[in-house]
Amino acid sequence: MDQENRAWLILAHAHLRVAELQVLLSRFGDVDNIVRQKRRDLDDAGLSDEKSVAIASPDDEDISRALKWLDHDSHHVIAFGQDRYPELLAQIPGRPLLLYVNGAVDTLHLPSLAIVGSRNPTRGGLRNSVEFARYLARQGFSIASGLAEGIDTAAHRGALDVGGKTVAFLGHGIDRVYPAANRDLAHAISENGALVTEYRLGTRPLRRHFPERNRLISGLCLGTLVIEAARRSGSLITARLAAEQGREVFALPGSIHNPLARGCHELIRQGAKLVEAAGDILNELAPLVGHMMRNTQDSTPSEASTVDADSDYDELRTILSHDPITIDELESQSGLTIDQLSSMLLILELHGEVESLSGGRYTLSG
Amino acid sequence: MDQENRAWLILAHAHLRVAELQVLLSRFGDVDNIVRQKRRDLDDAGLSDEKSVAIASPDDEDISRALKWLDHDSHHVIAFGQDRYPELLAQIPGRPLLLYVNGAVDTLHLPSLAIVGSRNPTRGGLRNSVEFARYLARQGFSIASGLAEGIDTAAHRGALDVGGKTVAFLGHGIDRVYPAANRDLAHAISENGALVTEYRLGTRPLRRHFPERNRLISGLCLGTLVIEAARRSGSLITARLAAEQGREVFALPGSIHNPLARGCHELIRQGAKLVEAAGDILNELAPLVGHMMRNTQDSTPSEASTVDADSDYDELRTILSHDPITIDELESQSGLTIDQLSSMLLILELHGEVESLSGGRYTLSG
Repeated sequence: MDQENRAWLILAHAHLRVAELQVLLSRFGDVDNIVRQKRRDLDDAGLSDEKSVAIASPDDEDISRALKWLDHDSHHVIAFGQDRYPELLAQIPGRPLLLYVNGAVDTLHLPSLAIVGSRNPTRGGLRNSVEFARYLARQGFSIASGLAEGIDTAAHRGALDVGGKTVAFLGHGIDRVYPAANRDLAHAISENGALVTEYRLGTRPLRRHFPERNRLISGLCLGTLVIEAARRSGSLITARLAAEQGREVFALPGSIHNPLARGCHELIRQGAKLVEAAGDILNELAPLVGHMMRNTQDSTPSEASTVDADSDYDELRTILSHDPITIDELESQSGLTIDQLSSMLLILELHGEVESLSGGRYTLSG
Repeated sequence: MDQENRAWLILAHAHLRVAELQVLLSRFGDVDNIVRQKRRDLDDAGLSDEKSVAIASPDDEDISRALKWLDHDSHHVIAFGQDRYPELLAQIPGRPLLLYVNGAVDTLHLPSLAIVGSRNPTRGGLRNSVEFARYLARQGFSIASGLAEGIDTAAHRGALDVGGKTVAFLGHGIDRVYPAANRDLAHAISENGALVTEYRLGTRPLRRHFPERNRLISGLCLGTLVIEAARRSGSLITARLAAEQGREVFALPGSIHNPLARGCHELIRQGAKLVEAAGDILNELAPLVGHMMRNTQDSTPSEASTVDADSDYDELRTILSHDPITIDELESQSGLTIDQLSSMLLILELHGEVESLSGGRYTLSG
């Protein structure tokens, strides 16, 4: 096991993508054999220099540190292709090669609902998050969210309140906690569910990780519920990713005078299901639980792409050229914020329209 | 003019439908000539005995009373086919033969928006009704509603507040006011718009008139906005009729804990446009103002019928047979309330699926 884990860690540290893994497996048979290859053979298989070097000459200290972390009952890595890899997550564009898990791997195989929303919700929004999480956790759903303050925290707590299961996807290494105020909550989640990340140990919570991480929240789940969200918030990114992954999107309506209802209303206008009670979600998801969990091979993400119709994306495509450009340059040319840009770039990357290069530069794909 | 009005009043008192009028006109040329026919000639034209008698031997006292009422500058009758008849109203199924108007007939030719909702709204709902009516009246829309307490009253008042135009459709004769508390409001509307009804003078505000009247509110307008409404409320009937008439339906979302948001949420789920601000409505309707008002001959009501897909309607159709049945019998057999039944029966009648007979009995058509 240590041998196989070591191989997977080497590949993950090299930022190998699943598509590249599949090429290497067809050539070299198994992961143990891949990591035994010389740099030249990896180059010949079509890998970039950077990745070939990282695999052929791994940083043993990093690998040892990760293996040492793994030497704990509740610490796991799950690799793409393993039975333990969550089936719904295996279907999404940009599925991660390796997941670091602190907690119970089984939780990732429960039917799951994502509950996400504002970091600064109203009291009513917080209460709704707790109540919906409680109800659905009692019905056997695992509640997935992002461990952020506000709606996320309330959702995790709601599930824990009723002895349910909950999963938090992190935007940093599994050996860190962010925000610090959620240390106790993170501990409780690891004991009643799982903390999950695709980032290697020690990775700091960089801003661009959070929209990237959002695809895993929606990707693990049958559906995503947005409780309160301003326009242009990260929760809308999660909802958009859910729709693109072919998953259900649910949104709570609210008063027209509540700015945090705006994001939800925008989603409803775009086709999200308007939800008034947790039972509405149960009714929608119950028939999918058996179906989607079993027929994972047949499912394909929705063809319809909201990205196509969005003028901000058109503008971004116009500014992006085949000469690499940094996000700061994009910011000054587009009038969009860094937050907006990093979300949009991620989505375009998942669509195969954009490639991210070293040095935080982006370019349109070939 | 008195002569022509007299003829129209006779036909209206006989409950002549527009379709029947058209048959008679093709046979007898004009309305003056129709009312000069003998009962036998009217029978021969396919009219029912009741209607033939009512036309050939009208109640002169009733007609004189109506003509006397007409002898006032602001009192009018508008007959189907006349230029003064509102163009959008002329398109709807069940368009009335004659409208009684107290006020300015011109108002009925302005681009109009219906604002309807609960008789017992929240304070927030009332405020929204006033604000939306003010904004849209300022933009040149006439605000149509039903003079009921609550949202209706607030909508009329909002339009009047800003010196705008407003139209109230009544469920009783034009010589009455209901509810009595709205006497002053009705007077103000007659001076800054119009009170309109299809019911003859002296008609009492029977319960079944109100859903029937609702088709005129939606029928005059480019769109209908529902501000707050419980499930199964009369406002939802108006919205459903608007959709069936091919008009826009708008609904305000609200907190999931507000029972009066439920009706609006139901509409949004069925395809009504979710509205957060009055500007949303303006954006939707502005392009229609020129288009729909001009191309009235080409327009046809929407083909899509929500009635088809509703299980309550299926149940009602099953209970209705070709043997006439009263609404009380329907109530005991269906588990639906009289209010629900009278709305549903009206809609089925407008669809040509149901006929109403004397004695308050109903039967499936043909």
